[in-house]
Amino acid sequence: MSEVAGRMAIQVGATYLEKERGGKGLLLGGVPGTRRGHVVILGGGVVGASAARIAIGMGAQVTVLDVNQERMAYLEDVFGAAIETLYSNPSNIGAAVRQADLIVGAVLVPGAKAPTLIDERLLSHIEDGSVMVDVAVDQGGCISTCKPTTHDNPTYFVDGVVHYCVPNMPGAVPYTSTLALTNVTALYAESICELGVERALQQFPALAKGVNTWDGRCTNQGVAAAIGVPYSAV
Amino acid sequence: MSEVAGRMAIQVGATYLEKERGGKGLLLGGVPGTRRGHVVILGGGVVGASAARIAIGMGAQVTVLDVNQERMAYLEDVFGAAIETLYSNPSNIGAAVRQADLIVGAVLVPGAKAPTLIDERLLSHIEDGSVMVDVAVDQGGCISTCKPTTHDNPTYFVDGVVHYCVPNMPGAVPYTSTLALTNVTALYAESICELGVERALQQFPALAKGVNTWDGRCTNQGVAAAIGVPYSAV
Amino acid sequence: MSEVAGRMAIQVGATYLEKERGGKGLLLGGVPGTRRGHVVILGGGVVGASAARIAIGMGAQVTVLDVNQERMAYLEDVFGAAIETLYSNPSNIGAAVRQADLIVGAVLVPGAKAPTLIDERLLSHIEDGSVMVDVAVDQGGCISTCKPTTHDNPTYFVDGVVHYCVPNMPGAVPYTSTLALTNVTALYAESICELGVERALQQFPALAKGVNTWDGRCTNQGVAAAIGVPYSAV
Amino acid sequence: MSEVAGRMAIQVGATYLEKERGGKGLLLGGVPGTRRGHVVILGGGVVGASAARIAIGMGAQVTVLDVNQERMAYLEDVFGAAIETLYSNPSNIGAAVRQADLIVGAVLVPGAKAPTLIDERLLSHIEDGSVMVDVAVDQGGCISTCKPTTHDNPTYFVDGVVHYCVPNMPGAVPYTSTLALTNVTALYAESICELGVERALQQFPALAKGVNTWDGRCTNQGVAAAIGVPYSAV
Amino acid sequence: MSEVAGRMAIQVGATYLEKERGGKGLLLGGVPGTRRGHVVILGGGVVGASAARIAIGMGAQVTVLDVNQERMAYLEDVFGAAIETLYSNPSNIGAAVRQADLIVGAVLVPGAKAPTLIDERLLSHIEDGSVMVDVAVDQGGCISTCKPTTHDNPTYFVDGVVHYCVPNMPGAVPYTSTLALTNVTALYAESICELGVERALQQFPALAKGVNTWDGRCTNQGVAAAIGVPYSAV
Amino acid sequence: MSEVAGRMAIQVGATYLEKERGGKGLLLGGVPGTRRGHVVILGGGVVGASAARIAIGMGAQVTVLDVNQERMAYLEDVFGAAIETLYSNPSNIGAAVRQADLIVGAVLVPGAKAPTLIDERLLSHIEDGSVMVDVAVDQGGCISTCKPTTHDNPTYFVDGVVHYCVPNMPGAVPYTSTLALTNVTALYAESICELGVERALQQFPALAKGVNTWDGRCTNQGVAAAIGVPYSAV
Repeated sequence: MSEVAGRMAIQVGATYLEKERGGKGLLLGGVPGTRRGHVVILGGGVVGASAARIAIGMGAQVTVLDVNQERMAYLEDVFGAAIETLYSNPSNIGAAVRQADLIVGAVLVPGAKAPTLIDERLLSHIEDGSVMVDVAVDQGGCISTCKPTTHDNPTYFVDGVVHYCVPNMPGAVPYTSTLALTNVTALYAESICELGVERALQQFPALAKGVNTWDGRCTNQGVAAAIGVPYSAV
Repeated sequence: MSEVAGRMAIQVGATYLEKERGGKGLLLGGVPGTRRGHVVILGGGVVGASAARIAIGMGAQVTVLDVNQERMAYLEDVFGAAIETLYSNPSNIGAAVRQADLIVGAVLVPGAKAPTLIDERLLSHIEDGSVMVDVAVDQGGCISTCKPTTHDNPTYFVDGVVHYCVPNMPGAVPYTSTLALTNVTALYAESICELGVERALQQFPALAKGVNTWDGRCTNQGVAAAIGVPYSAV
Repeated sequence: MSEVAGRMAIQVGATYLEKERGGKGLLLGGVPGTRRGHVVILGGGVVGASAARIAIGMGAQVTVLDVNQERMAYLEDVFGAAIETLYSNPSNIGAAVRQADLIVGAVLVPGAKAPTLIDERLLSHIEDGSVMVDVAVDQGGCISTCKPTTHDNPTYFVDGVVHYCVPNMPGAVPYTSTLALTNVTALYAESICELGVERALQQFPALAKGVNTWDGRCTNQGVAAAIGVPYSAV
Repeated sequence: MSEVAGRMAIQVGATYLEKERGGKGLLLGGVPGTRRGHVVILGGGVVGASAARIAIGMGAQVTVLDVNQERMAYLEDVFGAAIETLYSNPSNIGAAVRQADLIVGAVLVPGAKAPTLIDERLLSHIEDGSVMVDVAVDQGGCISTCKPTTHDNPTYFVDGVVHYCVPNMPGAVPYTSTLALTNVTALYAESICELGVERALQQFPALAKGVNTWDGRCTNQGVAAAIGVPYSAV
Repeated sequence: MSEVAGRMAIQVGATYLEKERGGKGLLLGGVPGTRRGHVVILGGGVVGASAARIAIGMGAQVTVLDVNQERMAYLEDVFGAAIETLYSNPSNIGAAVRQADLIVGAVLVPGAKAPTLIDERLLSHIEDGSVMVDVAVDQGGCISTCKPTTHDNPTYFVDGVVHYCVPNMPGAVPYTSTLALTNVTALYAESICELGVERALQQFPALAKGVNTWDGRCTNQGVAAAIGVPYSAV
Repeated sequence: MSEVAGRMAIQVGATYLEKERGGKGLLLGGVPGTRRGHVVILGGGVVGASAARIAIGMGAQVTVLDVNQERMAYLEDVFGAAIETLYSNPSNIGAAVRQADLIVGAVLVPGAKAPTLIDERLLSHIEDGSVMVDVAVDQGGCISTCKPTTHDNPTYFVDGVVHYCVPNMPGAVPYTSTLALTNVTALYAESICELGVERALQQFPALAKGVNTWDGRCTNQGVAAAIGVPYSAV
């Protein structure tokens, strides 16, 4: 799903840079003789790398910020001179974001709220008609002004900047998303058919982690805490 | 403008492949492990090459059909194994179009109606939810079911296939389009300022071709015929 | 050796697509204006990636099927839009193989028979004059109609499809194969010279795994079972 | 046809570098850790560039010799650091050929015998088991020891070097060659159908050049001279 | 020579960005996690394209300014997303130059003084420790503060910016420059040997243009004017 | 720092190939029609890969020698046909070095002296005016004739070959080097500020390894031995 979301983020961002959708009327990759858009991607994991690939492919100038030195080296190995990587700190984020036409929030901290990397003060320095897409908005997001929206009404404006914050971006391309999801879950479905639920759970610990209730007991610690019932291990 | 239109055609096509916009819900470039979209581009001139560049960049499988052998060789030189070129004849068009997810009409015949390359019979073989973008719709287009639409209401369906036929596609990205247009006209504007209109027209025959009326006379043959006034050379 | 075999598979496959060798007379990469060959590679490990590299280099359309999501993402990172990766399941294999001109079996399961991915029923849907190369034929192969052949008589036909099933493909390029083999074994030879056999075996467990007899005893479990003598640990 | 021949030259050359076919047993592109083959291409026109593309794609080290400065610059633009271009003079040819594993003669002088670039003395410096493919052997070729052979018996040895000199290389891939030929001749066939032969000849001077006899007279100067009949203009 | 000079311009520029040579201590291509240098190239002809190739290869961010739309499109075809092209006008030059770490003047107007594109006022906006290389300094250059220097003392500072203005840059790499020069002049030398001077001049008009004196008369109009002797045609 | 040093090695090497700096006057990447330089890199780790990237980018022919098969495969994945990898043994080193114009020593054995790969006898076979840069000269280096030099007097000649052996190459580009260093140390500085020294050392064992004295005791075994004081664990 991360790969779908990362690629969609650029496709959506390019679309909302169009004038009638509220953007500054910039073609993301420009054409020969005109300036091209600058895409700033916060986070160089799977989401960020997928976004970078499409942004480069559409001809944009691309900057990825991350703190993982090996990951940044890998991205430069793979994308060569078409990408710039910067250590993610407030100074670099500030400088990059001020020149950005499209900003993608791609910071995912598993099981935790993403840190806020862009706040309202920094937002005020972003040019009107720029676009921000926060891929992790449903986990808190890394842009303080991002609040979840829907496919029906996907964008709103803060300080002149287009905010696109649909949590379920892959839902727009169900053909691809369903296949992608099935590719990684098919093994578990097969094992349940062949082994039955209990033995499948024993054989695949990863599958067991997805069990929320079992035999009338709540087996997911987070869910138990959230709805106020006792937790019990599988 | 051709370069803007060609690049926009893929951006728009990818967007209308989204499910809620009527498309088949396919992410144009797919993700690892899922099939990617097949883009068929009719015509390998500036529009077609610009479209091909973005389609390749978004990760699609790309086929360009043209009749100019040297042009096709150049496209393969520049894009390498990421593109397939096919001689444009009814057999190849038919085979390619039947497998296409996104079809771009990029055939421009200066001063003439583009030939019809896709008719209603062939259309019936295209999968539902596929998208057709005819860049040359205002010059007649090369797809028989394409009729001009507007940015407000850009698409309609024929036989389950999304038709996007906005004649003024560059109008969606005025920042880029204005610069692109100015880049090629600035020289003339400067020469008029420096030389005055008459000497500028003498010096630049290309500029003189753009004069429609002069000293009360109609100096454009086509316009004269269209509105029924006598034509007179500049 | 896997890298030699993978690269040879495409070189051999392109050659047997020539008409006088029984193929359909297709140039693997085509030329501008003609369709190019479609290469389907079953398995994206070292053999499959090596095959993909050469197939892309010769200008073919390339599809690789695998079940490892990370491996497929790596292949797309490295080869970009020139490759398509698909999750390896019967549905995707069936669809890909029906459109293939050259099929490479590159599925290796260490110490086990490769699963059968193409059976006679699927074979009947492959176009006459297509070519199949099963790199793992000596480990059972993944194509049911593949049986080992020799460099002297390397191919045969089943259902109109050329089968190339020489188990020892690297044997055709001994200059390269010997160097490749020596590169990974030289360390062991040096250690035996310097340390003597016993200490070398102690220092390099990987080397010890290659010992079949020692001091009159059979020290390889598989060999012992196969020839009916008692097994004894080194 | 030039594009087919250029690409075939590398495919054939790689195959005849195999040991059992008389070559030195070298895999053209090598594998990581072993040296790769060095391909020297005499002439950087359509044949040479097509050969270069495939040779690079197969992982070889590629040197192209030509005298046209603009053409060499274009090849470096398109192929980047993967190619070396050298001015074609006896000194450079000698140095390059002595280090070559595969030599492709791709010098075509329309209507004239190609100059001899490799003679027997230079041949003696080429390593045994190397391969030479002279694409223009039917127009005299540029390698003095090349004499036309056939698909049935395509190679012979001189001084330990494999000579592949089949004049009709595209004949091995008739599917591709027929399409390639048809793509450039279809227009003429159509015009003859629509206009009749006489008017078609008037409209297309290129077509008229192909007429050898007309109304009982020989209309091709070369043919007339060769068979000793009077020549008469169309 | 233009190709040598363009490539040298980047090599020299990268070197003078080193701290002990007066530059700002920036590695032109940066490393993963640090910002890379921005190279602005004025002019996209042979010099500019050669400079762009090396700058991209060293990992810099590259902007080329030119007025020729077709040339800019070609550069984007060849270099893809690794280059940005901008129409060369005062506004774009000003914006690009203010952000540049390395500026290359590559504007050559045959037989005329290059226009001044960077004057002292614009220079004052360039960051200290940046480097300017004016390839055409011996034809007047396009940077007003550039005056010819020598290989012994190649640089000086104006307003904190390193100026490298050696007219004969190819002189630093005589091995390459001599070969490059010989490649384009060898034909004339051969023709003089074979035909004698007079017939060679007749056959090659380009050669005749290089004759300054003949039979005691001055045959070069510019030279005649410059030294005050009568001019006489060859 | 390894990435800075690797990239600097090629920049410096290209510069010292210039004639007035003692080199053979060769432009590293050549120009179309002239031979390009051959760069031989001993070691394919981070230093070697960084050097390879820039050498390829400048248009050179690049050979990397290493003993790690997976690393060499990765380099070919990433750099494709623009690089050759060879197993590092005396035979391959000898053959490669004899043809080299620029040799980069990039062999780093953590905590140990690098092995000597080029001795005086092999040096005598290297062409005059070639350049050697030993990145690991401060750890003993892998070229026997390399002795540390300074930025003020960076080179000397042995047997006609330019030796560049400045241990602190990144010192030439302090802007980039400081950022690169800070990117990997900032985390520790922050933790000391937040936690105090003691708790920071407890939390980050890597940080503790850098402590040389603590509470009046010497806590670094090597330093203790070197200056003759008792060693005591932190």
